[in-house]
Amino acid sequence: MTDTVISSATKEVRIGFEQPFVIIGERINPTGRKILAEEMKNGDYSRVERDALAQVEAGARMLDVNAGIPLADEPAILAESIKLVQSITDVPLSIDSSIVAALEAGLAVYQGKPLLNSVTGEEERLESVLPLVARYQCAVVAISNDEAGISENPDERFDVARKIIERAADHGIHHSDIVVDPLVMPVGAVNSAGRQVLHLVKRLREELKVNTTCGASNFSFGIPNRKGMDGHFLSMAIGAGMTSAITNPLHEEVMQGVMSADVVMGHDGNCARWLKKYRQPVEEAGGGGGRRAGRRRRRG
Amino acid sequence: MTDTVISSATKEVRIGFEQPFVIIGERINPTGRKILAEEMKNGDYSRVERDALAQVEAGARMLDVNAGIPLADEPAILAESIKLVQSITDVPLSIDSSIVAALEAGLAVYQGKPLLNSVTGEEERLESVLPLVARYQCAVVAISNDEAGISENPDERFDVARKIIERAADHGIHHSDIVVDPLVMPVGAVNSAGRQVLHLVKRLREELKVNTTCGASNFSFGIPNRKGMDGHFLSMAIGAGMTSAITNPLHEEVMQGVMSADVVMGHDGNCARWLKKYRQPVEEAGGGGGRRAGRRRRRG
Repeated sequence: MTDTVISSATKEVRIGFEQPFVIIGERINPTGRKILAEEMKNGDYSRVERDALAQVEAGARMLDVNAGIPLADEPAILAESIKLVQSITDVPLSIDSSIVAALEAGLAVYQGKPLLNSVTGEEERLESVLPLVARYQCAVVAISNDEAGISENPDERFDVARKIIERAADHGIHHSDIVVDPLVMPVGAVNSAGRQVLHLVKRLREELKVNTTCGASNFSFGIPNRKGMDGHFLSMAIGAGMTSAITNPLHEEVMQGVMSADVVMGHDGNCARWLKKYRQPVEEAGGGGGRRAGRRRRRG
Repeated sequence: MTDTVISSATKEVRIGFEQPFVIIGERINPTGRKILAEEMKNGDYSRVERDALAQVEAGARMLDVNAGIPLADEPAILAESIKLVQSITDVPLSIDSSIVAALEAGLAVYQGKPLLNSVTGEEERLESVLPLVARYQCAVVAISNDEAGISENPDERFDVARKIIERAADHGIHHSDIVVDPLVMPVGAVNSAGRQVLHLVKRLREELKVNTTCGASNFSFGIPNRKGMDGHFLSMAIGAGMTSAITNPLHEEVMQGVMSADVVMGHDGNCARWLKKYRQPVEEAGGGGGRRAGRRRRRG
């Protein structure tokens, strides 16, 4: 059993084998969002603010904050965004950048213990990000690719994850502070993408005892009814042992998948959260179920 | 890898580890359906006919046929129903009754190799049903309860399943002709019900090499948004290795869960069935996904 503890100044969230699943809201990210990118670049954080509040309201227990805008001062914008988001919500954050200086700027202003997003198995990245993780005593997302790119062989991705964990140990970083992203391929291009993830999540959990996360919506890239697929891909990944995901809590299908999975995994005691969300003043008609067990019980 | 082969006069269906999931339509069952019970008792099979066609149209690859009507001539009604259903559709059937004489009447008229539903671990049931399975060379659903009722301990239910399989072997019945129902408890009453099923399905598949089925909607008995929960419970059970279920294909949430799971398990080659069902003349906008992998690839 491994818990990864992330915190804000006042709130702690545990990503863990016996914890409810943690949704890390993905919306605060200008990649592919032209208007948001333009606004952030010009110092207008009103949409960041709305995105933060809406995602928390919808059920995100953490928020990812990314400020990857071409030709902009990413370290400064990321730091500003983090300060703003921390001033209006108390959920812990994931500080997301491909630029090490931006990660460092985010860490410098962050209050609490964040999740740093991310380190990879690339040598240069290992040696620049892991010292930051050690110095700031934060947790880190470990993405299972390296100089060779993303292997299509899931067991090679497992080996990259193990390498990152071993290297982190050299820096005094405990495996409970590493959340591995096994990398989700689009199933439209790689037919075995789903099985790869289920297989990897089990191995990562059983052999390396680490928590896991993923960019869930990559799976459905290029196929129709993406939200429906995202919800089921997530519930199945949770069944295999995945413990968090960077995804969009504003999609009802995604939330329903996660909430269902918490019930199935026994992580929603007495189905309390499910009942709170779906119970109507007048219960829907029963119908259909309970017959079989009933019949058997009478015979038993 | 185990395939359970079921057939009608002209069509074969394989329930198997590397096969698309098999939905066995549950609707032709008068239990709790007063009007249907009355009609069947009076020789009116028009609703049976409609239920058969509608379920096949919706995606059922087999149909369960049950004629359990109190104070009626169940063997005669079950045989009539089976003859009728076989005359209007070519999908293989599951012959479902708690009365051995009715199972036998159904077997006598059935064309092909049916799935007999069911044997349990009860001594009297083992000794009356298994000889029928051997004589008619059919497949059988094995329900993991015995004289002691349904154990709340999943490993005791596993032991009952093993006992049935061993006893069947004494009758010359191969384990590939046994489809185990691990029994699904309502999660509203038993908080660990979901984990029990995931755990049992894995053990049944890995240790006993058998296919599995369940009355899926029992899980959501007594909680709201049953259909949504049923769909996710099923996709998660499929992720754990379940290969068939007796359920309602008319519920879109259930079908979506099963179709998603087939995609995730790599059992819907090139997502062909998913695309056929959900592709619109104009594709829905992409948005949101593919960003992460894209970014990583550029760096990798």
